[in-house]
Parts: sequence; structure tokens; C-alpha cells
Amino acid sequence: MYIVLEGIDGAGKSTQIELLKEWLMSNGFQVETVLEPTNSEIGQLIRKFLQDEYATSDYMQKTLGLLFAADRVLLMNKINKLQEENKIILSDRSFYSSLAYQDPVDWIAELNKYAKIPDLVFLLDLDLKTSVTRSGETDEFENEEFLSCVKENYLELAKRNDNFKIIDGNKGPNMVAKDIKNEVAPLLGICKSSIIK
Amino acid sequence: MYIVLEGIDGAGKSTQIELLKEWLMSNGFQVETVLEPTNSEIGQLIRKFLQDEYATSDYMQKTLGLLFAADRVLLMNKINKLQEENKIILSDRSFYSSLAYQDPVDWIAELNKYAKIPDLVFLLDLDLKTSVTRSGETDEFENEEFLSCVKENYLELAKRNDNFKIIDGNKGPNMVAKDIKNEVAPLLGICKSSIIK
Repeated sequence: MYIVLEGIDGAGKSTQIELLKEWLMSNGFQVETVLEPTNSEIGQLIRKFLQDEYATSDYMQKTLGLLFAADRVLLMNKINKLQEENKIILSDRSFYSSLAYQDPVDWIAELNKYAKIPDLVFLLDLDLKTSVTRSGETDEFENEEFLSCVKENYLELAKRNDNFKIIDGNKGPNMVAKDIKNEVAPLLGICKSSIIK
Repeated sequence: MYIVLEGIDGAGKSTQIELLKEWLMSNGFQVETVLEPTNSEIGQLIRKFLQDEYATSDYMQKTLGLLFAADRVLLMNKINKLQEENKIILSDRSFYSSLAYQDPVDWIAELNKYAKIPDLVFLLDLDLKTSVTRSGETDEFENEEFLSCVKENYLELAKRNDNFKIIDGNKGPNMVAKDIKNEVAPLLGICKSSIIK
């Protein structure tokens, strides 16, 4: 099973992945966590380019769109192997992030046409004010206007894709974790009583 | 003007670029030469991946297709700037190389949809036996069977694109250079008598 957490920075994706991982393991599942961009050489280049002074320019956006897709091809290969080992994969972001953050969206979709479709996507939906406060606005991609577009894109993706579950990310971490576990439990045959623990 | 030399390895592209550059400069033009993959960080990663033991696998081919396109976006930005300075750009390879070498071709074309269309493409067409001998078969992409496909793809591209000129690359370098100059001279208003020099 390939489960993805999506949402703008500060939504609590990494915290929720850790809580979900711990709970799944305590229920006897083997779990691997992955992150996009990855720590591959391509992923490192992406992080560097995101800090470039021209990061928001048209040509850098296209370059980044291609690099994210390239990094993802390598990750999909890794995920395929992990799935063969019957592991549950929890991923911080997926190709849906590219669709929400980058444009032109039709082209971005085409670049990512060979990416695996996640079985389940938790969209941690957050008030923009909370997001900007939490993330501390560290780069060009974290201002309120841009994040407002991204949030809208995410909600649109959630409407169009059955694998999306919208989770209210404004709640405290344990409440959010409970909402996520409630969705996962029936799919893996986990007794609901284990969620309270 | 953006002039490209295409053809399989060993066709003599780099030699012809040097000869053409020298001749254009002696006729008063400012010339810049570029190469794909470039020497950017992405280009360096491409060279490394091409030597990978899984370079011919499906996932590595897709990764490479995306990386070549990303490297090219940065190059196109550089070429735009050079053209603003009225320079003639001579390029060793272009997106046509991706179309000739990589697949699935429709997807590769889509990745490269924002690449500049060269004004002129010289396809140095070479007998396969000569190519394999000249290149010394150094990697997976230089065996005769694969190169035969690439050669066919190139000839197909030449049929479909008016900017292509097929040049017989089996001739000696000076004869090939003469054929190329004969095509370039009228476009730049260069007197044909300068070709003989």
C-alpha cells in the first residue's frame, strides 16, 4: 500500500507520517517512509535550485518541473521494490505536489504520466494564516498569495480523485492522527479500538 | 541563427563545428559553440547516469529523458541571451538527439515541447560500420543494432522537418565542411568564393 501525505508546508505532514508509521508498526506492519524530493543527487539539485535567485522564473520552473519528475522516476522504482517486500510506503508528497505547485499543469501532468497512483492521499488542509505562521515564510514559494493558489489546486485535485481524503489540519496533531487512522484502519483490517491507544 | 549538428557518435560533429566556427569568424561573424548534454550540474549527472549499469533499463531511460530535457531548458535560456547579442550559435546536438535516441518518442517530444527549433540542422549521415569503428563502441548505446535504429530515426526526422539538411558524413572532413558551408553561405550572405579558401 502506497499512502501519501499532501499539503502546503507547515500542514504537519512529517509529524503525521511519524505518528502513522508508529501506529502501523505497533499493529505488526512493515513500514517504509519516503520523501519528495528524495535525497538522491537529483533531489539535492532540486533543493539547491529552489534556493536560486531565479527559482520563480519561467525557465527555472520548467527545469524544476522536469527535475522533480526525474527524481520521482527513481523513487517509483524504489517503491516498486518495497511493495514487492509487502511493505507499506508512507510518502511525504507525490506527483500531486507537482500538479498543485507547478505549471503549466497539463505539461506537468504529462511529465509525470508514469508516476504510480497512490492508493490513499491524505490532504492536510490548513488555514493559510496558520500555514504562513508555521512555516515562517522562508522562500518565494511560501507567501500567502501563492499558497492560496496551491491550496485551491489541492482542493480541486481532491474533488477529481477518489483516492483523496481531506483532513482538517488545523486540529492538534493527535486529533489529526486519529482522523487519518480512522481512514486507514478498515483498509488494513486494523481493529478501530487500537486507534484510541 | 541557431545551427545544430546532429548524427551518431563518430559522425564528425565536433570537427565540423570547429571548421564551421573558424570559417564564420573569418567572415566577420561572432560565433558561440555549445554542446548537449551541457557542462551544467544536470549535464554532469546525465554523463554519470549514462555510465550506470542500469542505464538501458526502462526507469533509467525515463530519468535520462527528463534530465536531458531539464539540461536543455537551461541551455535554451543561454541561447536566447546569445541571440540577443547577435551571435551565431553552433550546437553539437539538440532535442532532435533525444527524439532519435530515446523513447517513448511521443512522451520525449512532449518533455521537449518548449525547446527552440533550430534554424538549420545538419545531419551527418554515416555508414554504420564506419561509426562503430570510429567510436570504438564504448558503451551500451553504441552497438550496431541500436545505432541502426537511431540512424533510421534521424532520417525520418530529416524527412519530416524542413530545417534538416542531410550531409554525407563518409567523405573526408574538408569535403564535409565544404558541403556544410555551401548551405550556410547564402543564408548569411557570404560569398561562395570564400568556401574554397
